[in-house]
Amino acid sequence: MLKEKIRIVIVGAGFGGIELAKALRKSPVDVLLIDQHNYHNFQPLMYQVATGGLEPGSIAYPVRRIFRRAKNVSFRMAEVQEVIPEQKKLKTSIGELHYDYLVIATGSQNNYFNFESVKDQLLTLKSIPEALNLRSFIFQNLEKALTNSAEESLEEIMNIAVVGGGPAGIELAGALAEMKRFVLPKDFPELDLSKMSINLYEASPKLLGTMSEEASSKSLDYLRELGINVFLNARVHAYDGSNITLEDESSFRTDTVIWTAGVKGAPVKGLPQDSIFGGNRIEVNEYNQVKGVDRIFAIGDVAAHITREEPKGLPLLAPVAQQQGKLLAKNLIQLIRKKPMKAFDYLDKGVMATIGRRKAVVDLKVWKFQGTFAWLVWMFVHIMSLVGFRNKIVAFFDWMVNYFTYDRPLGLIIRPYKKRNKSLD
Amino acid sequence: MLKEKIRIVIVGAGFGGIELAKALRKSPVDVLLIDQHNYHNFQPLMYQVATGGLEPGSIAYPVRRIFRRAKNVSFRMAEVQEVIPEQKKLKTSIGELHYDYLVIATGSQNNYFNFESVKDQLLTLKSIPEALNLRSFIFQNLEKALTNSAEESLEEIMNIAVVGGGPAGIELAGALAEMKRFVLPKDFPELDLSKMSINLYEASPKLLGTMSEEASSKSLDYLRELGINVFLNARVHAYDGSNITLEDESSFRTDTVIWTAGVKGAPVKGLPQDSIFGGNRIEVNEYNQVKGVDRIFAIGDVAAHITREEPKGLPLLAPVAQQQGKLLAKNLIQLIRKKPMKAFDYLDKGVMATIGRRKAVVDLKVWKFQGTFAWLVWMFVHIMSLVGFRNKIVAFFDWMVNYFTYDRPLGLIIRPYKKRNKSLD
Repeated sequence: MLKEKIRIVIVGAGFGGIELAKALRKSPVDVLLIDQHNYHNFQPLMYQVATGGLEPGSIAYPVRRIFRRAKNVSFRMAEVQEVIPEQKKLKTSIGELHYDYLVIATGSQNNYFNFESVKDQLLTLKSIPEALNLRSFIFQNLEKALTNSAEESLEEIMNIAVVGGGPAGIELAGALAEMKRFVLPKDFPELDLSKMSINLYEASPKLLGTMSEEASSKSLDYLRELGINVFLNARVHAYDGSNITLEDESSFRTDTVIWTAGVKGAPVKGLPQDSIFGGNRIEVNEYNQVKGVDRIFAIGDVAAHITREEPKGLPLLAPVAQQQGKLLAKNLIQLIRKKPMKAFDYLDKGVMATIGRRKAVVDLKVWKFQGTFAWLVWMFVHIMSLVGFRNKIVAFFDWMVNYFTYDRPLGLIIRPYKKRNKSLD
Repeated sequence: MLKEKIRIVIVGAGFGGIELAKALRKSPVDVLLIDQHNYHNFQPLMYQVATGGLEPGSIAYPVRRIFRRAKNVSFRMAEVQEVIPEQKKLKTSIGELHYDYLVIATGSQNNYFNFESVKDQLLTLKSIPEALNLRSFIFQNLEKALTNSAEESLEEIMNIAVVGGGPAGIELAGALAEMKRFVLPKDFPELDLSKMSINLYEASPKLLGTMSEEASSKSLDYLRELGINVFLNARVHAYDGSNITLEDESSFRTDTVIWTAGVKGAPVKGLPQDSIFGGNRIEVNEYNQVKGVDRIFAIGDVAAHITREEPKGLPLLAPVAQQQGKLLAKNLIQLIRKKPMKAFDYLDKGVMATIGRRKAVVDLKVWKFQGTFAWLVWMFVHIMSLVGFRNKIVAFFDWMVNYFTYDRPLGLIIRPYKKRNKSLD
């Protein structure tokens, strides 16, 4: 007798969703992967797209191509509107979909905290269009600075504020500082670059809060060497489109505020209210099962697995999502076979961040190091993590050009970007 | 005594404008180059961006980088609104600019002929955003075809009509046919690709009207080999957003009509009415001087130099623009020195077009050839014509990947594209 196959629906083609679907490739289940985009993107290198170091095509890869040979994995580009757990159904932009098991791997979104009401005035880095907008905005402002309109001061047009001293913030600030030092004098010889300041604001007392003291203090040194004004214990209070104000009432005149200050989960609608934990994440148990509903799992940034050691859930990192995806594939098969599942245990292989050429910090469990070797390790790991041979080669080549010429290869304003409402009255 | 330098303003950073500014690099004049974009793009390869063969960054190059070492050339990103010849002034989006000599190199724009009123329903290839929209639109429709909505038939969603059998039309149609044959079966195994037809409509009796009989008939063979339905003597009459109708009243159901049927000049406002010739081009004499005004020149697609041999002006080709730019640089210096100028004489080095892998046609003056060697020549010439070392290498690499894997490297829907008004009632 022919039995219909169990259908596993995965929402989100980020690190977790992709890893899970890959690990299910040879299992006797049907896998349906859904994402609102037709590509997987490598979020940790988004700042490179924003600063003209890499093309979007180098850090993104069509989902269909990843699963070309996987006969049991299909992909649909769709937005998920709601889950109806009691009917085992998903409402989506392409109609209703049935699941036997559902895995929510929808990741995280920007968290604007007290800046929610002015979010249209901020630049962000969470998706490829956002990164391209940021790139266009910075280059447009430099062009604008040359035409000397009296409406805004040169400082306002050229200054840049980066809010947030996590990996995204410091990597972006470092790349901008290098652009200012090495690229802009060549491309904009008429501009007085001494009028351009790059400020970085971190609310806590240290940069890279989740990393070691060494990484934290070394990255501060690196940023200052590059000419960034780093402010610690600096809570931003308000932004009116021209001035960003801190809690201590100091302010900085700038058109360009880049928000990397935080993310929160991006759960789907329809889950029981009490399954949503702090930070908008979905509370899961050690098997990544969502609290209070049947047959629904969550992995990656959107999932919070609370333990005594991690009372806020595990950090929002690609390796966590990937390891959860890999284990969940096995656990789902166990579950279907009515065998015991295995509890998740995060294996921390280390964390790293790069600030600029030959300036990176690496924390491994047993060894923490910084500098040129850290930078080489960072490059190697990131290139190898890109999906597809073509992307690895092109990214490697672009970085070599960058390294030897001190140039960023890309600086096109393909689609000019305007912040939504300049005056906020 | 310090004498103020003569100021030459060039409007447009296409092939003509760039070549002219380059040739003036060491002359004792100030050159101001203006373009609405901050990059120069390689128009002949636009169809590669549209079909996912190349990244936009490979065929475009920031103007400022081309002139980094040219101390007397500056660039401004601006839109030109009007020229006021009697005051030697240009009105632009960044204010009024004075010139001693003005060169209009604004190129050409899409010519919709009888389709002007439905142009928002057509897809075009004239700029990088247009090419990216086309790429997104085709991939979105394939995704849509999978979800089987009953509103539109599968054929309507998947069929493609290309209007125009010039180089742009046949190169695009060929690339689409190869994509259909080699890429889509791998990426969309669930789709019934036999329902997808690609039709090419050419109003005249032959393809590649400006090329030789051999090139024309061989390209027809190539397109048919690739499965394209080619219609000659086929004048399109109307499009309602779902059906394209020909003058003979036959019709073809399709959501995707790609318009490559013609271009017209894109002159600036403010020139005397009688200087505008057929095809919206500016009439110039043998020195590229605009009829009826002083100190204003026009080169490239926007200029029509009428001779007995070329009663409609020279063809709208990159080499014409480049040669005119090069000569005009010398002539402007001669003019400033009050010496005689040299009349322009176009040196036709040949024309070529490619239809697919190992399928290209080349017309040289003394030798016309087609096939693999023509294709290699085409690739070599086009790669060498790209601006910048990085772009040459990346394009070469992408084409090698394409050649050996039968794959198009890129297929991301970064910014989904919607035609403006789907129903045209």
